[in-house]
Amino acid sequence: MAIGRDELTRRIDQALGRGKADLVIRNTRFLNVVTGEVADSDIAICGDRIVGTYDRYEGVEEIDGRDLTVVPGFVDTHVHCESTCVTPTEFDRCVLPRGTTTAICDPHEICNVLGEQGLRYMLDSAGGLAIDLRVQLSSCVPATELETSGARLDAADLVRWRDHPKVLGLAEFMNFPGVFQKLPEVLDKLAAFQDRPIDGHAPLVRGRELNAYLSCGVRNCHETTGADEAWEKLRKGMQVLIRDGSVSKDVDALAEIIRPETSSFLGFCTDDRNPLDIAEEGHLDHLIRAAIRRGAPVAHVYRAATWAAARGFGLHDRGLIAPGQRADLVLLHDLEDCAVARVIKDGRPVGPDTFAGRPAVAPVGLESIRLDPVEAADFAVPVAGSSRPVIGILPGKIITEHLTLAVPQRGGQAVADPERDILKVCVLARHGTNRNIGRGFVRGFGFRRGAIASSVGHDSHNVCVVGADDADMAVAVNRLIALQGGFVAVAEGRVIGEIALPLAGLMSLEPFETVEHQLRTLRGAVRAMGCPLAEPFLQLAFLPLPVIPHLKITDRGLVDVDRFEVIAA
Amino acid sequence: MAIGRDELTRRIDQALGRGKADLVIRNTRFLNVVTGEVADSDIAICGDRIVGTYDRYEGVEEIDGRDLTVVPGFVDTHVHCESTCVTPTEFDRCVLPRGTTTAICDPHEICNVLGEQGLRYMLDSAGGLAIDLRVQLSSCVPATELETSGARLDAADLVRWRDHPKVLGLAEFMNFPGVFQKLPEVLDKLAAFQDRPIDGHAPLVRGRELNAYLSCGVRNCHETTGADEAWEKLRKGMQVLIRDGSVSKDVDALAEIIRPETSSFLGFCTDDRNPLDIAEEGHLDHLIRAAIRRGAPVAHVYRAATWAAARGFGLHDRGLIAPGQRADLVLLHDLEDCAVARVIKDGRPVGPDTFAGRPAVAPVGLESIRLDPVEAADFAVPVAGSSRPVIGILPGKIITEHLTLAVPQRGGQAVADPERDILKVCVLARHGTNRNIGRGFVRGFGFRRGAIASSVGHDSHNVCVVGADDADMAVAVNRLIALQGGFVAVAEGRVIGEIALPLAGLMSLEPFETVEHQLRTLRGAVRAMGCPLAEPFLQLAFLPLPVIPHLKITDRGLVDVDRFEVIAA
Repeated sequence: MAIGRDELTRRIDQALGRGKADLVIRNTRFLNVVTGEVADSDIAICGDRIVGTYDRYEGVEEIDGRDLTVVPGFVDTHVHCESTCVTPTEFDRCVLPRGTTTAICDPHEICNVLGEQGLRYMLDSAGGLAIDLRVQLSSCVPATELETSGARLDAADLVRWRDHPKVLGLAEFMNFPGVFQKLPEVLDKLAAFQDRPIDGHAPLVRGRELNAYLSCGVRNCHETTGADEAWEKLRKGMQVLIRDGSVSKDVDALAEIIRPETSSFLGFCTDDRNPLDIAEEGHLDHLIRAAIRRGAPVAHVYRAATWAAARGFGLHDRGLIAPGQRADLVLLHDLEDCAVARVIKDGRPVGPDTFAGRPAVAPVGLESIRLDPVEAADFAVPVAGSSRPVIGILPGKIITEHLTLAVPQRGGQAVADPERDILKVCVLARHGTNRNIGRGFVRGFGFRRGAIASSVGHDSHNVCVVGADDADMAVAVNRLIALQGGFVAVAEGRVIGEIALPLAGLMSLEPFETVEHQLRTLRGAVRAMGCPLAEPFLQLAFLPLPVIPHLKITDRGLVDVDRFEVIAA
Repeated sequence: MAIGRDELTRRIDQALGRGKADLVIRNTRFLNVVTGEVADSDIAICGDRIVGTYDRYEGVEEIDGRDLTVVPGFVDTHVHCESTCVTPTEFDRCVLPRGTTTAICDPHEICNVLGEQGLRYMLDSAGGLAIDLRVQLSSCVPATELETSGARLDAADLVRWRDHPKVLGLAEFMNFPGVFQKLPEVLDKLAAFQDRPIDGHAPLVRGRELNAYLSCGVRNCHETTGADEAWEKLRKGMQVLIRDGSVSKDVDALAEIIRPETSSFLGFCTDDRNPLDIAEEGHLDHLIRAAIRRGAPVAHVYRAATWAAARGFGLHDRGLIAPGQRADLVLLHDLEDCAVARVIKDGRPVGPDTFAGRPAVAPVGLESIRLDPVEAADFAVPVAGSSRPVIGILPGKIITEHLTLAVPQRGGQAVADPERDILKVCVLARHGTNRNIGRGFVRGFGFRRGAIASSVGHDSHNVCVVGADDADMAVAVNRLIALQGGFVAVAEGRVIGEIALPLAGLMSLEPFETVEHQLRTLRGAVRAMGCPLAEPFLQLAFLPLPVIPHLKITDRGLVDVDRFEVIAA
């Protein structure tokens, strides 16, 4: 980080044109996110910095920029790397070539499984990547007391990591009900990071509750799904981070808030986006493209994705194509299509060499599925009344409906009714501290037979399984135990698709291309089962998340999120 | 700074309306600098924070805001407090009631006289004020090697103060020629503050030189006097701090750059503004008013003066009227006129009580004019050629012209020619290290008789004196020595006006109202001498500043700033 006389000397000489710059993009155009203009200019680079714009330069190395438009590197303001199902090393290789040069991650998933060991793994990994991966300290481990997590991080644990060079502040403060309840451990964490960026998580939080949440120093929110909600947050000074993940896709609804007046107060994020979607749609390039297609002003979409995103987190060295700024650049074939031709990170063109020499970090948590084999009877649900709460899936949303439906009874048990799309859903504690199983019903998965199971189950990552048939559910869970984590699809007692995620039960040890292929195969298998959802495993993975309205399920049972309590299953 | 559970508990309860807020501005309107809207709302305050907007609240204390419009407190992004001629304690009392709730100062003047003793005095003073006075560490002490200063602060001296709670970064890096020359001590200072705000000072610096300057991490410039220059700086990512001081008034020329696209990249500053101008025109309120009168969009003028100013310096807790933000508010009778009715700082209405209990800081540098009495002969200038370089004053500018004029000769000496408005100007080293006297001629002061002298002479604050008559010049300097600093006007051997500035030869020990009165009387006296300048002592004080083009004078002689060297007088 620290530089000395020599590097400044080189910058000054190269900026003044006293010698050739290290690298020059010649005869190009770039988008100036300050003025909104597209400027004809060379871009001169010395080391990791831009040293010349609005002028002509010669370079030791030169790139012909004649048919390209250059924009600043994109900043993903909120991402759980674990949700790409690959290691940070593969995340790097997957998203940097698409223009994401900075990512601000919340290692919430691995921390909920492994605690500080998981945090250390992410920080160690971050130190060796080409992308600048910044880490927000996970604020909600466990997310709530309504579930069994694998670890606990209290305020003192977090404060120990405050001054790590990759750490910015406090990650998404999901436990907003805990704020209104003034829970001491919640207040302690917030108090300890008042001078740092504190990320928000405030789906549908409005009015005085939003005021209270903001009053605790929370700066932003990536959980906004409607324009009206976004306007209220903006008006209250909250940076709105427009998300398009693999499950929750908010760009279409929020594109209208991107305006010349507001763009400085916005950002984009992917939150949870898997390699399949990255391959098929893109990463931040997809969000930018989508916002522009919805009619948002081009220059302000890019300002939100670059300068505004960086400044919201106190990163002053990036987000502009200007002398002194970090040379993180995206060279586009087309500005409106955000068609990425090349990427430059820290002044060096990104290519295979970029990723070749990076240090390896040993995987952790390879035996984290601490469950004994199960059988069908473990999923039995006793009868209780004529109707019961049923989780209603909303395709492409992580918010669910709280339904009340009649569920068939057979032999003293409530059972799935695939004809009416009512399936059984169970969550099994997998951290070895108890043998909890939460049981309930869900509508929206739509398959008539079989079961799917996952060791990714936000946020405690207990094992979750949905099925039309208890026996298939047992086969799926037992296969997951054998894999030590992953996604499994079972039909008629047979595994018809799977992917192993043995690193903390969250991440594959394979290259992202392999993971992409496995996910594609798995998706096909689940579609063949009759599931209409675009992302069945991600919809499954968010069912246990008891900080997202309205009805969820954890290892302790069904959770009414609006009341923030476990209700009878 | 640090808060705990109790304060967060209070904020949450008051934001939720569970109890009365500490203070509520009821039934008011406020300017939302995010959206540009004027919103009808109460504003609830708990302690030093805003906790509620866009809602109705009840308060323990209430202010009826019916006929008022509320805006965020103003941020003066660059000010030399010393130039108000009063102590920081009086600066506070003078400007806070006008809406300036944060000021970012460069204690450059006192540091050039007293070194670290001066810096410590400013930091100690800042700690006890009502206004939030932040300190940038003076980067150019001495400003150049072309003059004799009272102290020297090298990179190691500055680094020692980096982590003081009132310190932000490095103050205006005036020695831009030293950057292009790659002077080691210049590079060391820049290198040591790469991760902090580094203020620029780049009058007329353009093209590749501007690129080189920015490549060293400089973030902003307050020395921009023309719109074309400002556009280049903005395009190169430099925050343009629009100045209107007592001498250099740039708002009229720069108002056109304030636009919805650019306002996030701007700020306002007063740089050098004395109590007389503050009383007659205003402080930042004047700049805002002036920009609006020139047609700049109202909401964006305020955004530049508040949010954009704060964020440029990494201050995330102020600049918006929003929950969680510091309750620094200005209540206006009229938004477009920026007519200040009341000010709230840290949640408390500003009034006489605000200033009553502040701790006193002992004055320093009370015997800093280390000069022996002079006589007329000390100012004699030997003949040298038929014409000579003459400094051309530009009224209201600190930039000067480099003229070449014939100067009359008498008895082997070059002498003043008041009929042609050619006066003698001398600068006398006053720090006790040498007895240098620089001698030259100046056009533009316009008086036919007498002399004026000052111990304020940027940036080394040697004694400077301009006169139509060598004997009067000697009387003026000798009176300055007796006062141990100040401004003196002399005609026909008699002192006709004066103000004592005994604190480092820069600041009065009197209340600002007294200083305002003394300055008014003094201005009248100099006008009676025939001087047409609005601010003769400030124009005099900037004559020795060898980092502002084009011709200046120091104790070492006339300085050609464009060549950055002392030339024959």
